[in-house]
Amino acid sequence: MVVSDTNRQLVIIGGAEDKQGDCTILREFVRRSGGINARIVVMTVATELPREVGEDYMRIFERLGVEDVRIVDTVEREDANTSTYLEAIDKATGVFFTGGNQARITSVLRETELDRLLHKRLAEGLVIGGTSAGAAMMPDMMIVEGDSETNPRIEIVEMEPGMAFLPGVVIDQHFAQRGRIGRLLSAVAQQPVNLGFGIDENTAIVVTNNQIEVVGEGAITVLDVSGITHTNLGQILKDEDLALCGVKLHILPHGYRFDLASRQPIFENNVSTTNQTDAQAQDMPLVESA
Amino acid sequence: MVVSDTNRQLVIIGGAEDKQGDCTILREFVRRSGGINARIVVMTVATELPREVGEDYMRIFERLGVEDVRIVDTVEREDANTSTYLEAIDKATGVFFTGGNQARITSVLRETELDRLLHKRLAEGLVIGGTSAGAAMMPDMMIVEGDSETNPRIEIVEMEPGMAFLPGVVIDQHFAQRGRIGRLLSAVAQQPVNLGFGIDENTAIVVTNNQIEVVGEGAITVLDVSGITHTNLGQILKDEDLALCGVKLHILPHGYRFDLASRQPIFENNVSTTNQTDAQAQDMPLVESA
Repeated sequence: MVVSDTNRQLVIIGGAEDKQGDCTILREFVRRSGGINARIVVMTVATELPREVGEDYMRIFERLGVEDVRIVDTVEREDANTSTYLEAIDKATGVFFTGGNQARITSVLRETELDRLLHKRLAEGLVIGGTSAGAAMMPDMMIVEGDSETNPRIEIVEMEPGMAFLPGVVIDQHFAQRGRIGRLLSAVAQQPVNLGFGIDENTAIVVTNNQIEVVGEGAITVLDVSGITHTNLGQILKDEDLALCGVKLHILPHGYRFDLASRQPIFENNVSTTNQTDAQAQDMPLVESA
Repeated sequence: MVVSDTNRQLVIIGGAEDKQGDCTILREFVRRSGGINARIVVMTVATELPREVGEDYMRIFERLGVEDVRIVDTVEREDANTSTYLEAIDKATGVFFTGGNQARITSVLRETELDRLLHKRLAEGLVIGGTSAGAAMMPDMMIVEGDSETNPRIEIVEMEPGMAFLPGVVIDQHFAQRGRIGRLLSAVAQQPVNLGFGIDENTAIVVTNNQIEVVGEGAITVLDVSGITHTNLGQILKDEDLALCGVKLHILPHGYRFDLASRQPIFENNVSTTNQTDAQAQDMPLVESA
């Protein structure tokens, strides 16, 4: 897994985040972006309803006290070289990608001036957030589409290059709600990466450098295929069933943390790294998450 | 895990098995029950439509060449002590439980003469099959009902004693199709067992003593919590989110085998028992399943 040592901060949301109540996740995005002094850009490139969706988020961020909120709607690739848009990104402290179609994000933005600027500013401390399609596009290879509620097969998932804000992992969203473990396993098994993150609705992973913290109502499902003991991946045809043995799985709800470099949940006394085989769940020494 | 050393043969189906085409799974049940010389009893206790459902299975088994097929419909507990029913079970080579409501199976049959006779005959070589509710009731503790498409929480799954034909595990059905990994994780974490089996639709596990073989269209998802490194199970309230770290997961499609005693997939040269950490799926030495 390639994880560069940047100052990156990402807020990656599994879709359907609370926009009416406490807004726990969007509040976290605003706080990290500078609170009431944040300068936020809402990127509506993924959605077919840029005005409605953009103004929704603008209202929410304003309700949370942010005065400087701008909508940037890049429709064509040439829009992504527009100087006013580039200036907005250059001054922003937080950039938020709405839901919609992740393939639209990459087809309009990848390898444009705006793309290069986002990566430069991310390394300098810009917070990038995204929900649903805006979450899917975060890795270097993203799930474009795929079947839900099926066992893993090769053909059920289609991958394309993503925006590479969080390289080295695969991300899926609306995870428990749409029964997507089969497609995430299929994606991770087929990519040269070890980690898959399935993010539930109204749940986010907040990335700070190489550390992840879970925020929100549901959980994240971490799939680690680094230690698998068997797969039939090289032998089966496209429509046949995938076998995978020895996948490591973690379920991490609100407040739990995970280290991308060591691929381990983080606990204050590192109990997670000890090897307590054959111990019953009920008999384990329990440790408070940090 | 308690696994007795019997001659048990079970065919445990995740629901919605093919009844029109090749009937791969029902064919396997018939073959193990003695083929065209089988004497099959169809137990309709779980369903509210015993006549329709019973006659459906009777027609299928007859189409596969079995001449001796009987329907036993126990409605009340006293029916389970009826001598004609007991004689039918005593002579049967295969007993098949239809779908419906698993709580009806246990409330009518548990600790009756018929229950005792089924266990005695199972140890003597009787094949017991079941689909959907007829699969859920197989363990000593069964999932009665639960929420699908959610992250694991304590309250989402309700458990009751099952028929204990396959003690020491938890079974869930319609698994991928209904997004049930959250509820199966919740069930396994709360029970004093280490193994959960999620069986997809039109897919079965065929149990012979302590060995399992997968048959059918989908896959089974094996969840092994014996080596978990952390859980918050003892600390959270009923409606809070469960954390589970270090669950081992196997996806096993048609033809794959699993050993209940060692909790390992079975390969001819036992590659599954070696510890090849940090190897990529794509770079693994691949082994044909037996």
